Amino acid sequence: MKKTFLVTAQDSLSSARTGKIQTPHGVIETPAFSPVASQGTVKALIHSQVEGLGAQVILVNSYHLYLRPGLDTIAKAGGIHAFISWPNPIISDSGGFQIYSLSPLVKVSSEGVKFSSHLDGTRIFLRPEDVVDIQRTLGTDIMMTLDYFLPFPSPKAKMKEAVKMTSLWARRSRARFDEQPTAQLLWGISQGSVFWELRRESIEDLLEIGFDGYALGGLGIGEPKSDLLEALEKADALLPKNKPRYLMGMGYIEDILDAVEKGVDFFDCVLPTRNARTGTLFTHQGKIVIKNQKYAQDRRPVDEGCGCYTCQNFSRAYLRHLYEREEITSAVLNTIHNLHFYLDIFQKIRQSIQSNSYKEFKVYLQTQIKEEVR
Amino acid sequence: MKKTFLVTAQDSLSSARTGKIQTPHGVIETPAFSPVASQGTVKALIHSQVEGLGAQVILVNSYHLYLRPGLDTIAKAGGIHAFISWPNPIISDSGGFQIYSLSPLVKVSSEGVKFSSHLDGTRIFLRPEDVVDIQRTLGTDIMMTLDYFLPFPSPKAKMKEAVKMTSLWARRSRARFDEQPTAQLLWGISQGSVFWELRRESIEDLLEIGFDGYALGGLGIGEPKSDLLEALEKADALLPKNKPRYLMGMGYIEDILDAVEKGVDFFDCVLPTRNARTGTLFTHQGKIVIKNQKYAQDRRPVDEGCGCYTCQNFSRAYLRHLYEREEITSAVLNTIHNLHFYLDIFQKIRQSIQSNSYKEFKVYLQTQIKEEVR
Repeated sequence: MKKTFLVTAQDSLSSARTGKIQTPHGVIETPAFSPVASQGTVKALIHSQVEGLGAQVILVNSYHLYLRPGLDTIAKAGGIHAFISWPNPIISDSGGFQIYSLSPLVKVSSEGVKFSSHLDGTRIFLRPEDVVDIQRTLGTDIMMTLDYFLPFPSPKAKMKEAVKMTSLWARRSRARFDEQPTAQLLWGISQGSVFWELRRESIEDLLEIGFDGYALGGLGIGEPKSDLLEALEKADALLPKNKPRYLMGMGYIEDILDAVEKGVDFFDCVLPTRNARTGTLFTHQGKIVIKNQKYAQDRRPVDEGCGCYTCQNFSRAYLRHLYEREEITSAVLNTIHNLHFYLDIFQKIRQSIQSNSYKEFKVYLQTQIKEEVR
Repeated sequence: MKKTFLVTAQDSLSSARTGKIQTPHGVIETPAFSPVASQGTVKALIHSQVEGLGAQVILVNSYHLYLRPGLDTIAKAGGIHAFISWPNPIISDSGGFQIYSLSPLVKVSSEGVKFSSHLDGTRIFLRPEDVVDIQRTLGTDIMMTLDYFLPFPSPKAKMKEAVKMTSLWARRSRARFDEQPTAQLLWGISQGSVFWELRRESIEDLLEIGFDGYALGGLGIGEPKSDLLEALEKADALLPKNKPRYLMGMGYIEDILDAVEKGVDFFDCVLPTRNARTGTLFTHQGKIVIKNQKYAQDRRPVDEGCGCYTCQNFSRAYLRHLYEREEITSAVLNTIHNLHFYLDIFQKIRQSIQSNSYKEFKVYLQTQIKEEVR
């Protein structure tokens, strides 16, 4: 397996580290946050804005792109980078989560998963090999294996089944991946919720198969925080230091700070972009619900001291006005702010690790962000 | 009256001319196109994009801003420029058109106009003096008088009445405007549709009162093109050369080209921005309806040779995908293109007049744009 990850600094008081993921379209400095661009665009932002905010990578969704515009269109364009004109790294989710959460009538067998398109009900059957092929056609920099995702809470016996299936599929994904040479990376997804013996089994299976990176799936979906932290800590001890770890879909800053401390390198979440569109803005003094009447004549920026375009130029009063008028620019300006808020924190996380002061930074930020949006 | 307009070049074969309108927030080079920003934002674009596209001025709507967020909020922010953070010239429509087109139960008397808010039905009474006061509070660079707008076609007798009322109100607007010194400009609006004797009466009344600029209202709403051209030609002969002329709401490029030839200096229209949001894109080879299946795998830019961000970076196939997915970025990228298309043509109009080749340019552009969107 090619070497695609390099640890560049290790915090001495925790498992936090910085690193570089080498992809066909460039390097991702970790810990990294990937904005979500399911359909090939970060919602409300044009690519130049996403790049300007410091995003190093975006996450597209295999499930959505497979359904529409379809692989033929993307292949004819020369792959996903050419189709959407994003020259930097792209990671693709396998679509597992979407299949289980959006589709009615999901039927899982060891062979693969049968589901109905959430658009028109068409029955679709995908084997783990197909999902590798789809992502090969997309040409994303980082591909994810098809996993078997269960909601929280699920019975242990059912979860044990899901882990077995996930491991079987991971093995077949790897085999398919190895059939043809590619510069793309393949990351495996572990399941098992917070049942440690199941999560351990899942991770050990993945390690035995061998991947360029290891994801923790099925977390951040309602399990108790203490159980999450325990799982992260144990996974940290089990996972090799020389591979990147990805905590899928986890987006609350307080959870991210904890996960970084436990050695997690990679994150994605719709939280900053989705909240922006519904008018919830992150600040270092807690959240702001911009439609509130109290902001109607508030001339202050959203977050004092924030360097983003929105805060440098516009008042809460104007942003409230745009939100109330349902102007498209409301979504744009709010998304610029929220995404800046996230990416700026990630830059500071990396800086603090490099100066060996991550724990200090974490406490400082936790104290600042009093009223986290949940 | 202060001198706020300077003709900088006169085409020798037509009435087309270039000029400079001096406003409190800077100079507007004419012929100029003002994007519409009714609520204080050009729909789908943030200000930096609007400026980057070369817009010199935006048009806000007194009627909408008066209703929401209300004058108190804007006054407390320090005026419209501060409230919306747009440091360049702003023109405000008096709201006449909106009152007559959006409000149920409009009642006009010589005293003013009584109407119901289109939002909650509240009965509102506005005198022409109130409309001056509203725009004084907004602090827009160019204020428009309250006029009496009638749809096309309207009976001549009714139109005669509307012209009389418009003149009466214009006189009272001017008197109110003169009560307090301001650096703001006041432009008068003429009515009379394509009844030349009424239009002439209206213009002559305005000229007698005296304004910083003269608008032709109530045109481009369905009257025959030949009648419009005749009205423009006669108005051109009647209006002084040393004042700017504004053809309100007129947005088809072919009409704009004709109007510039007849000495019109200023335009505004929702056409480029509204069409962008519904997926109709202007090109030098005619319009493109981006949702059409035939663009699904079309790797060409919207308009070959176009220098806008959208055309420089994205394919028709991707823009169709974004439109079909109802992504916000579809509206953004389409608006960037359409507004660039308009503002670029206006820049070329000014260049061609300055090089005394306007008619040549007009024929060239008319030949190019074969299939104008109507």
